[in-house]
Amino acid sequence: MTMLATAVQRLEIDSLDRKTPLLSVNFDVDAEALWLSVSRASRPALISQGLYGLTNGVPRILTMLADTGVRATFFVPGLVAERHPAIVPELIAAGHEVASHGYSHTPLSALANRQAEEDELRKAKDILEAQAGHELLGFGAAACDVSVHTLDILFDQGCLYDRSFLDSDWPYLFTKENSRLVELPVSWVMDDFTFFGHNIYPKLGWGICEPETVARIWRGEFATFRDDGGFGCLVMHPEVIGRRSRLPIVKDLLVEFSADCTFQTCASIAASVLRLSQPDRRPG
Amino acid sequence: MTMLATAVQRLEIDSLDRKTPLLSVNFDVDAEALWLSVSRASRPALISQGLYGLTNGVPRILTMLADTGVRATFFVPGLVAERHPAIVPELIAAGHEVASHGYSHTPLSALANRQAEEDELRKAKDILEAQAGHELLGFGAAACDVSVHTLDILFDQGCLYDRSFLDSDWPYLFTKENSRLVELPVSWVMDDFTFFGHNIYPKLGWGICEPETVARIWRGEFATFRDDGGFGCLVMHPEVIGRRSRLPIVKDLLVEFSADCTFQTCASIAASVLRLSQPDRRPG
Amino acid sequence: MTMLATAVQRLEIDSLDRKTPLLSVNFDVDAEALWLSVSRASRPALISQGLYGLTNGVPRILTMLADTGVRATFFVPGLVAERHPAIVPELIAAGHEVASHGYSHTPLSALANRQAEEDELRKAKDILEAQAGHELLGFGAAACDVSVHTLDILFDQGCLYDRSFLDSDWPYLFTKENSRLVELPVSWVMDDFTFFGHNIYPKLGWGICEPETVARIWRGEFATFRDDGGFGCLVMHPEVIGRRSRLPIVKDLLVEFSADCTFQTCASIAASVLRLSQPDRRPG
Amino acid sequence: MTMLATAVQRLEIDSLDRKTPLLSVNFDVDAEALWLSVSRASRPALISQGLYGLTNGVPRILTMLADTGVRATFFVPGLVAERHPAIVPELIAAGHEVASHGYSHTPLSALANRQAEEDELRKAKDILEAQAGHELLGFGAAACDVSVHTLDILFDQGCLYDRSFLDSDWPYLFTKENSRLVELPVSWVMDDFTFFGHNIYPKLGWGICEPETVARIWRGEFATFRDDGGFGCLVMHPEVIGRRSRLPIVKDLLVEFSADCTFQTCASIAASVLRLSQPDRRPG
Repeated sequence: MTMLATAVQRLEIDSLDRKTPLLSVNFDVDAEALWLSVSRASRPALISQGLYGLTNGVPRILTMLADTGVRATFFVPGLVAERHPAIVPELIAAGHEVASHGYSHTPLSALANRQAEEDELRKAKDILEAQAGHELLGFGAAACDVSVHTLDILFDQGCLYDRSFLDSDWPYLFTKENSRLVELPVSWVMDDFTFFGHNIYPKLGWGICEPETVARIWRGEFATFRDDGGFGCLVMHPEVIGRRSRLPIVKDLLVEFSADCTFQTCASIAASVLRLSQPDRRPG
Repeated sequence: MTMLATAVQRLEIDSLDRKTPLLSVNFDVDAEALWLSVSRASRPALISQGLYGLTNGVPRILTMLADTGVRATFFVPGLVAERHPAIVPELIAAGHEVASHGYSHTPLSALANRQAEEDELRKAKDILEAQAGHELLGFGAAACDVSVHTLDILFDQGCLYDRSFLDSDWPYLFTKENSRLVELPVSWVMDDFTFFGHNIYPKLGWGICEPETVARIWRGEFATFRDDGGFGCLVMHPEVIGRRSRLPIVKDLLVEFSADCTFQTCASIAASVLRLSQPDRRPG
Repeated sequence: MTMLATAVQRLEIDSLDRKTPLLSVNFDVDAEALWLSVSRASRPALISQGLYGLTNGVPRILTMLADTGVRATFFVPGLVAERHPAIVPELIAAGHEVASHGYSHTPLSALANRQAEEDELRKAKDILEAQAGHELLGFGAAACDVSVHTLDILFDQGCLYDRSFLDSDWPYLFTKENSRLVELPVSWVMDDFTFFGHNIYPKLGWGICEPETVARIWRGEFATFRDDGGFGCLVMHPEVIGRRSRLPIVKDLLVEFSADCTFQTCASIAASVLRLSQPDRRPG
Repeated sequence: MTMLATAVQRLEIDSLDRKTPLLSVNFDVDAEALWLSVSRASRPALISQGLYGLTNGVPRILTMLADTGVRATFFVPGLVAERHPAIVPELIAAGHEVASHGYSHTPLSALANRQAEEDELRKAKDILEAQAGHELLGFGAAACDVSVHTLDILFDQGCLYDRSFLDSDWPYLFTKENSRLVELPVSWVMDDFTFFGHNIYPKLGWGICEPETVARIWRGEFATFRDDGGFGCLVMHPEVIGRRSRLPIVKDLLVEFSADCTFQTCASIAASVLRLSQPDRRPG
């Protein structure tokens, strides 16, 4: 249905219990990478917004996750890991999952060709895996933007799951020959940048919301996943949600929904989805 | 008054009882078409947002309409019907009206010339009528954008009503020689995209609202149509309103206003408007 | 201070009692003109939004004003008066003031030169005065945009007041040799387009607000003018505020603030300001 | 981490008590300068918005500060001081700090080269210091935009502190050889332009908010600085916050937080930060 490489097919999972909540909290550690991708000139103060996520956001987020006992998935661009080599080991030491967010936060559909994209994804994977000390299982595209080649490359690179599409409340599969890739689709309404992302020059964002308003919107979202199932995933950015005026709304939601549900890493959800769909197969 | 083809005239309906509420709920099933019209590159994840409307939105909407006993009108682009041939028959089997939303969701005023527009509208009509198994009575332009040729073409193609203009709370007529075309005008405030439409790259939308805020705005709108008459029409998109956190606000409004009013299809409203205005004539 | 033609000077009015409320409600009857100025192609449905103001908005506004006993000022573009010659006489017959809004709603600073602007303003004045049957006293620029020539031209054309600047809560004067022109400055927060103006293609507006939110903002504004003086002027557009879900907030404000204040036309306020500042002089 | 000139290093202050609140209110007196930097043509009414800040905003702000006993820092562009030579002396006479906001409000990264930027900053400093009658200690970049050269130039010009970066809730240092420059980082959420900045042509801003909503957001921000320490700085613009409907929210916050904290000028905070970090050194 979507424009995919010819060998790649989308496949619903008939054996999935559609009433089971699959909740996750994700943090895209964009740091400099996001701002370098939207601004042409070299502009240190603009770019410093992203560093707020590293210096102020990540430590608070780790404390909050430790307090609530939730394991999260952090999507890290290769460029960020390269510049700040302590981050990935710290995230892993704290018991969280690290996944690839590409190398440079460039929208993948804006790259010149398949080779450029393959290099972009390979470079990120190599850097991140060297730092993590183990294979990475997941990928999430910057700005949820993929090209017609992306899935094909993810298959070639042995990825377990992708978190880039926006077309369902439930996980599904992409298949290529005998391989399977779990898709964990997300939505803009469960993204903190939608409500808090902001910049003047270049102009970004849709205005800054009151944290309580966002808490009500996200509570409403999580409630539908708790009550009626699906992959309910909050995608956040340490520079945005890591502000002390905002992080408490996430903590409160985690505490509230942990009463009935378990927040899991994307890898954990993807693995169980894959088991359900066909226990005897693995991608790659 | 507006720039119309010379033979086309706008005509108020003197015999219309202006206090009668004419309520309708519409769903523009844009799927891939909207996103293909705003993005140059081939970008499957971007486009997947539209598919959410098909895979998640439409089934929930059909259930909600069945629960409330409301018959709606679904405006479908030809391209979407072509790619997803099960949709139109399913909508019709459920007792709803299908109308044309053009072929490709390209704003009509952006097409090269009258011939290109005639082809665009004819192609959509042919595909949709073949799938529906009967003649289509209505047309609604993508993004409420028509050219100076559009009405003239709709007359040539024997259309009963158009839902593209934004200039009144009441239906009126367009006339061309002896033919009459009912105009069912709408407004941006009764469109879900206004409050929930969103994308990062390209940037779309005005921020995502809390569903309860939108419910209050729409309740206020419907109340004016119930109390003082006119064509009160909510134009929604399955990918936007089909989210489980949002659809309940529509269900609640349908239940609330069904106490005093009947929600009708656009075709049903247009037919009664035409009867009122001149019982012995039909367009085309 | 601002960039003005050399002969024009800005002058504060020392004799003005700064605690006196000078309240006014204005309606810019832009109809087709606004939309013709923002869209290149000929697009009848887009333009029809403006006609809502004529067909639906103005009649309701006139009723509301009659009900509350408030006299308002209507700024009409020459192009709109030319296309809809019944409007200006109707507004005047209802006891309201008509002022010039230029001819075509083109931002004046975008015109080629002084001559083009002189023609634009003269043409509007001639059309409107012929229809009104008397001289017009006021001018308000489209989009509050004036060029370095505008004031100079207004002096040449014998204008009593301008309503285009945004630099004070109090009226002041522009002087040129022995002539005086009253400036009645406004603000974006007291403009309905700020909260309700909307279009998709081209994208306009900042999102559509709940009427009650706007009522609270405007109530807060009017309260400062009632309590501490100044020119408190609500600038509205019939196509925006003329909706039945919105107009009641204006009616309620007029009723509420009429308890302590009198809403006046701009001409009435300008005349008393001019008397206060120098009783024995008139512009032109 | 950020792209800085090679000789400049970022340095955390280990000796800083991170629980101490360092609160400040700042006013960027942009007047004509902001509007001249966003509009190409000469447009007096557009530019007049900035003058509202001088004629209406600054006097009210000075009264409000006097009433609450708070000393603030005013960042003034050289161009504004040059055109309105009474402002800087008036601010200083009232006991407030004046700092440099550059000369022309042009984003520094948009200037042609290092020399152009050096001239821009030197010119502002010379004008402001001549009017102030003493050396200026601080600099804050227009639109929080600096180039790779800015810090280097600030070191050369003997600046005590910069207020342009967006990467922490706490002050830190930049070092160059033996010199130290205090960085006082800010955030968009504590900026009034985020919530009230507005213009139609060119389109600016994210919609105008209700003052009470902004009061709640800022109260939440200040509370985190009061309770958990850091540089909590509200950056405001007289033309925006100087409106009588808005300034009371600032007064209320100053009164409320003065119960537990002291609002200080940026210079006072920077000096104490520098003492803490290394008592026997001074920059330049």
